[in-house]
Amino acid sequence: MIRLFVPNDLTAGVGVEPKPDQARYLTAVMRLGPGAEIALFNGRDGEWLARISEVSRRGCHLVVREMLRGQHFPPDLELVVALVKRAPLETIIEKATELGVRRIHLVMTRRTNSDHVKLERLQTIAVEAAEQTGRLDVPEVVKPLKLETLLQDWDPSRRLVFCDEAGDDPSAEWGGPDGRAKPLLQALKSENAAENAAQHEVQHFSPEAQQNSPWAVLIGPEGGFDPEERRRLRSLPFVTPATLGPRILRADTAAIAALTLWQAALGDW
Amino acid sequence: MIRLFVPNDLTAGVGVEPKPDQARYLTAVMRLGPGAEIALFNGRDGEWLARISEVSRRGCHLVVREMLRGQHFPPDLELVVALVKRAPLETIIEKATELGVRRIHLVMTRRTNSDHVKLERLQTIAVEAAEQTGRLDVPEVVKPLKLETLLQDWDPSRRLVFCDEAGDDPSAEWGGPDGRAKPLLQALKSENAAENAAQHEVQHFSPEAQQNSPWAVLIGPEGGFDPEERRRLRSLPFVTPATLGPRILRADTAAIAALTLWQAALGDW
Repeated sequence: MIRLFVPNDLTAGVGVEPKPDQARYLTAVMRLGPGAEIALFNGRDGEWLARISEVSRRGCHLVVREMLRGQHFPPDLELVVALVKRAPLETIIEKATELGVRRIHLVMTRRTNSDHVKLERLQTIAVEAAEQTGRLDVPEVVKPLKLETLLQDWDPSRRLVFCDEAGDDPSAEWGGPDGRAKPLLQALKSENAAENAAQHEVQHFSPEAQQNSPWAVLIGPEGGFDPEERRRLRSLPFVTPATLGPRILRADTAAIAALTLWQAALGDW
Repeated sequence: MIRLFVPNDLTAGVGVEPKPDQARYLTAVMRLGPGAEIALFNGRDGEWLARISEVSRRGCHLVVREMLRGQHFPPDLELVVALVKRAPLETIIEKATELGVRRIHLVMTRRTNSDHVKLERLQTIAVEAAEQTGRLDVPEVVKPLKLETLLQDWDPSRRLVFCDEAGDDPSAEWGGPDGRAKPLLQALKSENAAENAAQHEVQHFSPEAQQNSPWAVLIGPEGGFDPEERRRLRSLPFVTPATLGPRILRADTAAIAALTLWQAALGDW
């Protein structure tokens, strides 16, 4: 069934006018007419069945009928991604939405030379990806900040996995600010085990608390992080450095791989 | 350093004429001149340092100097992918190369209507991705076959993970031909544990033998597999069904996610 994201409050009986491009999609592209059913969601009220009640030259009109699914959010995972070129950045927004990310932060790093981005266009990509992947919410794409600024204001209760593609000394020891980063899947499992153990000391172990612990994944620019940035990241208590295998990955591949491993190890897969 | 794939045998002192588009890339795009150094690989002889000895209007000439790395292959993982549209298919070839796949089989399924594909173009994408990802080999892109034919001639010692996106009855039991498929990471770990246990009975446990056990990942067309195909796949002893989370993934996202999980659980990550 076709799914559309709309800003309207959704409840049985209300009427909804889709935006012109949505109306064109329904009537001209998909050739739906009066009586056809689609699903609507707004990120707040769950998913609702709606019926096309009227088609005119200027658009179409929908009437909301019944709830299909109650509102639900994916686990609390965010993506922090350096501004890369337009095509991989758009791929990352689309795929991060399919992979259940709740919020996407764009950052400028020392090796990022682009600081211009069409935020509205990226948000539209997130909306369309959410419609197609079956989510009931749309990830927010936050306007670009300097990495430095983002880190200064970071909530330390949210762990940040830093995919450290380059610069490891293979002869160094594992872990620590100067040691080698672990493979991402292992790093996530160790962090999680440590956190569960800490929780266990102060309270009864609860799978819900574990499920809700907030995380983020950081993906660098195509040229990698600057040595100064790497040192700074590794010195922060909420940062977990990790590696993604022996081959060089493009930024979009690294983002998809890291988000996949998080969902499989700690998320809702 | 720039890396080029060439067909020539590589050994110290031999001369190599890059193809016209490679020569144009080196001299016109990257503006390299005599004395500049690049790396060459051919999928057989390892990686070699080479120096540009001459640049002319018609191309350039390289002289091979010394070996940088001995020949090495990624773990024995293949990808079987239904013919999807051109753009996601090209993304899949590029990303599968970065994710260390050794061979890519293209298949026609019941819900695939395309049977035409520019094989040479796809192979070029694999070569360029191998150059950029730092591999010493290039995955072979095999010309399209019917899924039926591929399965008939399948070597049963190679396990095939079937990413079964749709059709599961959520009330069914786990496993078996009619049961629910497991999440992919769990499915890979159970298979691997079962295999190691079986090996253990007849011989001493050997990590090398485990490392070398061959696998493949199967990704269906955008419309999913036909119920008949799903039944057939699930009845085959070498097939492991698996799921990739609660959201609907596009074919390219599913391919990257499945290959990532395999590399993290059983591969070289």
